[in-house]
Amino acid sequence: MTFRQLRTRSVFSELLGSIAERSLNMIDLGRTRSAPASSARLVELCHALLSSKGEATGIALAWQILNGFEQLSSDQKATFFHALAAEFGPDVAGLKAAAETYLQDPSDTNAVRISMAAEPQRQELIRRLNQAPDGTRRVVNIRSDLLAAIDSDPGLLLVDPDFAHLLYSWFNRGFLELQQINWETSAAILERIILYEAVHEITGWEDLRRRIDPPDRRLYAFFHPRLANDPLIFVEVALTVDTPASIQGILSPDRDPIPASEAKTAVFYSISNCQTGLRGVSFGSFLIKQVVETLKQELPGLRDFVTLSPIPGFAAWLETQDVVPALARNADDEWDWVDQSELGQPAAQMMPGLAAHYLLNEKDSAGFPRDAVARFHLGNGAILDRVNWLADTSPRGRKQSCSMMVNYRYKLEDIEKNHEAFANSAAIATSTAVSRLAKTIRHQSGPVTVT
Amino acid sequence: MTFRQLRTRSVFSELLGSIAERSLNMIDLGRTRSAPASSARLVELCHALLSSKGEATGIALAWQILNGFEQLSSDQKATFFHALAAEFGPDVAGLKAAAETYLQDPSDTNAVRISMAAEPQRQELIRRLNQAPDGTRRVVNIRSDLLAAIDSDPGLLLVDPDFAHLLYSWFNRGFLELQQINWETSAAILERIILYEAVHEITGWEDLRRRIDPPDRRLYAFFHPRLANDPLIFVEVALTVDTPASIQGILSPDRDPIPASEAKTAVFYSISNCQTGLRGVSFGSFLIKQVVETLKQELPGLRDFVTLSPIPGFAAWLETQDVVPALARNADDEWDWVDQSELGQPAAQMMPGLAAHYLLNEKDSAGFPRDAVARFHLGNGAILDRVNWLADTSPRGRKQSCSMMVNYRYKLEDIEKNHEAFANSAAIATSTAVSRLAKTIRHQSGPVTVT
Amino acid sequence: MTFRQLRTRSVFSELLGSIAERSLNMIDLGRTRSAPASSARLVELCHALLSSKGEATGIALAWQILNGFEQLSSDQKATFFHALAAEFGPDVAGLKAAAETYLQDPSDTNAVRISMAAEPQRQELIRRLNQAPDGTRRVVNIRSDLLAAIDSDPGLLLVDPDFAHLLYSWFNRGFLELQQINWETSAAILERIILYEAVHEITGWEDLRRRIDPPDRRLYAFFHPRLANDPLIFVEVALTVDTPASIQGILSPDRDPIPASEAKTAVFYSISNCQTGLRGVSFGSFLIKQVVETLKQELPGLRDFVTLSPIPGFAAWLETQDVVPALARNADDEWDWVDQSELGQPAAQMMPGLAAHYLLNEKDSAGFPRDAVARFHLGNGAILDRVNWLADTSPRGRKQSCSMMVNYRYKLEDIEKNHEAFANSAAIATSTAVSRLAKTIRHQSGPVTVT
Amino acid sequence: MTFRQLRTRSVFSELLGSIAERSLNMIDLGRTRSAPASSARLVELCHALLSSKGEATGIALAWQILNGFEQLSSDQKATFFHALAAEFGPDVAGLKAAAETYLQDPSDTNAVRISMAAEPQRQELIRRLNQAPDGTRRVVNIRSDLLAAIDSDPGLLLVDPDFAHLLYSWFNRGFLELQQINWETSAAILERIILYEAVHEITGWEDLRRRIDPPDRRLYAFFHPRLANDPLIFVEVALTVDTPASIQGILSPDRDPIPASEAKTAVFYSISNCQTGLRGVSFGSFLIKQVVETLKQELPGLRDFVTLSPIPGFAAWLETQDVVPALARNADDEWDWVDQSELGQPAAQMMPGLAAHYLLNEKDSAGFPRDAVARFHLGNGAILDRVNWLADTSPRGRKQSCSMMVNYRYKLEDIEKNHEAFANSAAIATSTAVSRLAKTIRHQSGPVTVT
Repeated sequence: MTFRQLRTRSVFSELLGSIAERSLNMIDLGRTRSAPASSARLVELCHALLSSKGEATGIALAWQILNGFEQLSSDQKATFFHALAAEFGPDVAGLKAAAETYLQDPSDTNAVRISMAAEPQRQELIRRLNQAPDGTRRVVNIRSDLLAAIDSDPGLLLVDPDFAHLLYSWFNRGFLELQQINWETSAAILERIILYEAVHEITGWEDLRRRIDPPDRRLYAFFHPRLANDPLIFVEVALTVDTPASIQGILSPDRDPIPASEAKTAVFYSISNCQTGLRGVSFGSFLIKQVVETLKQELPGLRDFVTLSPIPGFAAWLETQDVVPALARNADDEWDWVDQSELGQPAAQMMPGLAAHYLLNEKDSAGFPRDAVARFHLGNGAILDRVNWLADTSPRGRKQSCSMMVNYRYKLEDIEKNHEAFANSAAIATSTAVSRLAKTIRHQSGPVTVT
Repeated sequence: MTFRQLRTRSVFSELLGSIAERSLNMIDLGRTRSAPASSARLVELCHALLSSKGEATGIALAWQILNGFEQLSSDQKATFFHALAAEFGPDVAGLKAAAETYLQDPSDTNAVRISMAAEPQRQELIRRLNQAPDGTRRVVNIRSDLLAAIDSDPGLLLVDPDFAHLLYSWFNRGFLELQQINWETSAAILERIILYEAVHEITGWEDLRRRIDPPDRRLYAFFHPRLANDPLIFVEVALTVDTPASIQGILSPDRDPIPASEAKTAVFYSISNCQTGLRGVSFGSFLIKQVVETLKQELPGLRDFVTLSPIPGFAAWLETQDVVPALARNADDEWDWVDQSELGQPAAQMMPGLAAHYLLNEKDSAGFPRDAVARFHLGNGAILDRVNWLADTSPRGRKQSCSMMVNYRYKLEDIEKNHEAFANSAAIATSTAVSRLAKTIRHQSGPVTVT
Repeated sequence: MTFRQLRTRSVFSELLGSIAERSLNMIDLGRTRSAPASSARLVELCHALLSSKGEATGIALAWQILNGFEQLSSDQKATFFHALAAEFGPDVAGLKAAAETYLQDPSDTNAVRISMAAEPQRQELIRRLNQAPDGTRRVVNIRSDLLAAIDSDPGLLLVDPDFAHLLYSWFNRGFLELQQINWETSAAILERIILYEAVHEITGWEDLRRRIDPPDRRLYAFFHPRLANDPLIFVEVALTVDTPASIQGILSPDRDPIPASEAKTAVFYSISNCQTGLRGVSFGSFLIKQVVETLKQELPGLRDFVTLSPIPGFAAWLETQDVVPALARNADDEWDWVDQSELGQPAAQMMPGLAAHYLLNEKDSAGFPRDAVARFHLGNGAILDRVNWLADTSPRGRKQSCSMMVNYRYKLEDIEKNHEAFANSAAIATSTAVSRLAKTIRHQSGPVTVT
Repeated sequence: MTFRQLRTRSVFSELLGSIAERSLNMIDLGRTRSAPASSARLVELCHALLSSKGEATGIALAWQILNGFEQLSSDQKATFFHALAAEFGPDVAGLKAAAETYLQDPSDTNAVRISMAAEPQRQELIRRLNQAPDGTRRVVNIRSDLLAAIDSDPGLLLVDPDFAHLLYSWFNRGFLELQQINWETSAAILERIILYEAVHEITGWEDLRRRIDPPDRRLYAFFHPRLANDPLIFVEVALTVDTPASIQGILSPDRDPIPASEAKTAVFYSISNCQTGLRGVSFGSFLIKQVVETLKQELPGLRDFVTLSPIPGFAAWLETQDVVPALARNADDEWDWVDQSELGQPAAQMMPGLAAHYLLNEKDSAGFPRDAVARFHLGNGAILDRVNWLADTSPRGRKQSCSMMVNYRYKLEDIEKNHEAFANSAAIATSTAVSRLAKTIRHQSGPVTVT
């Protein structure tokens, strides 16, 4: 998205806003425009939006509703969402009739009819809100507020499927654009990258520059045409000779960059989802695979594609195991073997085995790995390749992952096979080294013990 | 959409294609890739696409299905659509169960469940097809083929709601971009304008230039970000001093352009929908209103916004009326009063009245005007302002509209009021002149006669 | 140059024009603005432009002068150019003094002084004219008019070095941009390509499309940032398997394109200079070499880079030779052996040899080849590789080149060596085949005879 | 300049570099490419560049020379510049002959001849260096080094006119583009803005954002198409209601922005030249006038265009006056009346008068104001409108301008008149208030005294 396009686009946004505002002058729905927004008032406007057949009025109403919503307090928003639940479902009589007809004659045609009758009015409401200037971004933000409201009031959960359904449809992979983010990118986008980085914090513009400007660093993001300045997800890549065993070397301000042409390995060391309002709409697998292809095209010398990933569930799991008393935590609730030489040695021996065991053998109720990052990469078809000790000695790394990180390896020719085996039978593709490590841990039905 | 963007985008399309192609090498679904496409084979791939959990494979499969579909004959496509109808509906058992549950307890939550159970698998199939390179355009084209197949086999009608539903959602006004088309526009887009013009044929590049390059001509189109070179709908505008009474003067190659700053009137003299596959997704009202706003902003001197529109249903209706024997048709099936002075005089007196009557008083079964163009502009809130005799003397103009054209007038301050009156009670906003004209026609229950 | 940029730029052009126009309201140079332009009036304004210290006024004056000049008749332009010659040279007294000082003391510093004193006021005048909106394009056009005026009045020749000097400096290779022209290019540029093609006429938009849209066709042009829609020079390229022996196959509307990836040979079959006003500023050699590099990068499978070139001076030269009476011309002044079988055979034997002789042995007064196209390619370091009989059977091809065309071959590794040999000693790099062909012609001091 | 353009361009730059590098393989000038650069070696290559007729070789040589130059030490660069002075002047014999001919017959034609003979070879050398990738920027940088070398060795002064001449010609106003810089601009450009701000330091990205992102702030820059990421000059604008009397309010991080539509006044509060290598090529007057036009077009509500400018020469001048002993400086060499109430009062009375006197009455040897900023704005046709006490209390403001700032006012309708009066007779347009202030100062031939 270029500067001039943005400005051109913004001209049209203003025009559109201007249509909306003009139309507002024509409608009188019983209250003045400057009246303070209330959820009741917005619900009234939402009914008008659905009943209105005038499309210009539709944009104006949508715009007014979005403006009003954004001024509501959290409580008012919750009230509004409750109204969405109560008043904007499907037509009950119609749906009942369609259900009865279908049960009498479950024909394909009657299936279509029931499908149409079952669609809640919320969906058309959301589609009309999307027509307003900057509507897509604002609908995404409404869902973000909705998810927050659901956290404290699960009764609102029934409103979410309509948002989720439409956003899943609108943020289809076919509509996304991959862009490389670098020092030529606009400050407006770059500041969002700083803000959104969720794995290894970016401390400021100089730190950001170190991640996008040197010849051996890349950052790629997916964008949606209607969230032009706002990335959906991004991945940070380091180009290296060998597979790195720690994040410290990658993030060091003092390291010497290498020419991209000398790189043999692309390391995906950070992946961040950016939009809370798009939770559950998954972009990561598409992103990694497209970036692998993009890099192979640009740098034919690349041989290996690996991650350097945290083990975010490891420490929490470890707490529940017998082996913990043998270890120690310091006052800051960090594992402190790193600094204590007397414990360092045994920890260095014991911990990678525990991590390998955790990743390979500890499963959730569906039989898949407990660890979310492991599920993600293994589900994408990657191989669990290596566990690295003292790979992330930052406070968060020590607390979450006991300072370890994992390399998952993407081998294009095996991705499909690994994915199918994992999806169908939860089989994990792993290196011999990790398998062996895991076998150093004894584990039957109870907590693990170290061999 | 600029040239360089297109090329950049095309690079990514190729990459994406490349991912797809590479993935194809990994999957073996029992047949070789070069095997001739068959509808049975494609149906098999569609099932695989829905069952596959691997997203890279998904893009590859989608791509393969789209490639294969495009090679099918019409008959094979019909067979494929029948399979979509038969094999990709909702899960019958699940839907039955949800219907029963809902009938027992029509709660909001059960309504959500039935809505989810009722969604045909076709919708997810279409969403996954959309992920392929150039997927959106190709899905639109599939629907175009589907509509053709339905024409000869109405049994396929039940497949269309899923395409219609998704395209209606994906081509939401919020995703469209208005662009001015002019002589700086790429030839790739311009040739499509020539191709798509459906009202007043563009005879070649010089004719096109006369419609977009002079200072008193404009052409605006809506684009979707994923159909970048392909307009969805466009409108041609002439900037004039007065409201024109004929199309001949507007299209004349010999006319003298005026500076845009001298224009007082913007005339919408041609609106063309471009994509058969988007039939029923309506853009025209949005387009006209946004162009009005755009022009007002650019040219504050503009006072009037009118159309110069055909009366496409008039001649067909007239055939059914008593008055016709008093008129004559020539050997080419054209109304020939234009050239025959003896008939010309009475026709000139009689015809505008008949047209006014037709537009104001002849209704369809729902009580709205018979004439589709009248329904469109009146439904948008325009006023039926003037009927013009000998306004389009081209063969088509003579045959369809008996050489007449109508000015519909868009007055921003009245649009909402007119629209509401029309939508709610089929009331038509009209000028005094047209009302009077219509009253010259006597009409009771039978065919009209002229006063 | 993209559509949106052009429009953005044009906004600024208008602003600039607006500054100029506003400023005009402030100056009163004794005549009203609407007075008909005259060369005397323009000369007066030129003096004002040079004396004015106000830069806003400078742009306004420059704009007024350019507008006025463009309304002059040819005779008035000639008068204006005479005034440029007479009134805008260097300061005579100052130059005399500087010359005397230099002759007394030819120091480096005095050389600088004489250089500054010798610069005609015309150069500063042209630089100030260039500041006006669209100034660069308009200065180029003034030189085009000047060259036409010189043709009929060589006395004006002394004005040209100043235009030539500045344009040579402003159109330095470092300022030019290479662009590929294709079907995504704007109609505004494409129509100029049609207009400017000087070698093999483009008959319309369909013919143009055949040269830029198929996968095995390319067209590249140099642009200057300030002549954004207007190419300076372009080359048309056909991608083929083998070196082509005729233009007919390349231009045929019926040929089957090949995928670019199958091409082994890039054929430069047409090079056109576009701007008369830039005569003498040479772009061709830069263009060919950069296109060779661009194509090698995009299509690593390319092995050979050759031209298919006319021999424009051949027929004229042949007229002066003894051998002509043995041949015949038809009523249309075309060589007619092509159609007359009795002459065809000997011509086919004799003509290529004559052409080879002409290209290799017939020299201008400086010892370089008589043929301008040969001088160009050989001067660029190409090899005279092959003479093709019946290679261009169009009327122009028959009349100018007796239906023959030549392949010059660019071998990157030999370019420098060939160029140096040609530049230093007029040595021609040639294939054995062409050398042998030339030896079939006997030639001593007089006209040639055929062996 | 957009991101994608830059990348497209950079592809071509690489291609061009690739041509250059390839060509290097073909030339052997007696030394290997990896030999350490030396000024003697570069001089040798410069001679080769001028003698070479091969244009591809020319680009390669130019590239090699520029690369080499950039590795030289300051001393080596000085040596190189001396060689440019000694070995690349005009042909002495030819210039002598032309001078003699001209003195015998000072005809127009002989003037042209002497002009051509007098051009130093340095100019063609610079033009050929400009052909190399990124040549323009690098030539600008060479001149920057040259100016530094001249500072310590005035003997090199004679080399500068050739650089100055070409850069003056290449950076003609007609080639520049105005761009608004805002938060959508690339980080690569923004960091240069931070770097180049010369008047009121930008302390970091947040400070920068406060100057370009709020609705009542603007920053405009001139760019050259070949220095795409690098501004030539920029101006910072504050949109305000009234004419501001101090810089503190404008730069305050705590101020409340106003909507642009409420602004009545545009304040030019900082103008920075960016390129040392373009010293003497003046852009400021063009920039201010175009920004005035741009703002008037965008914001018709603007009534006043004023500067808030320092008086950089005031304190230095004041030191030389009798009045100084009555004032005091503190240990940090700052005027300390600001903080010392006992002195504050009289200073507040006395200082504005002294400043008004200084600006109006203190002249340089040519009779123009001593103060450079005053000369600039008055020369542009502005009015000396107001002197503001305690308008810049920063250390620099206190030290240079004794904490005062001046509003110069640009009234479009008076610019031309003021400019002419200033240029022709050094007459200063001033407000009554400033005139009166100046009269409070008694001044005859010696230092000033306060009334």
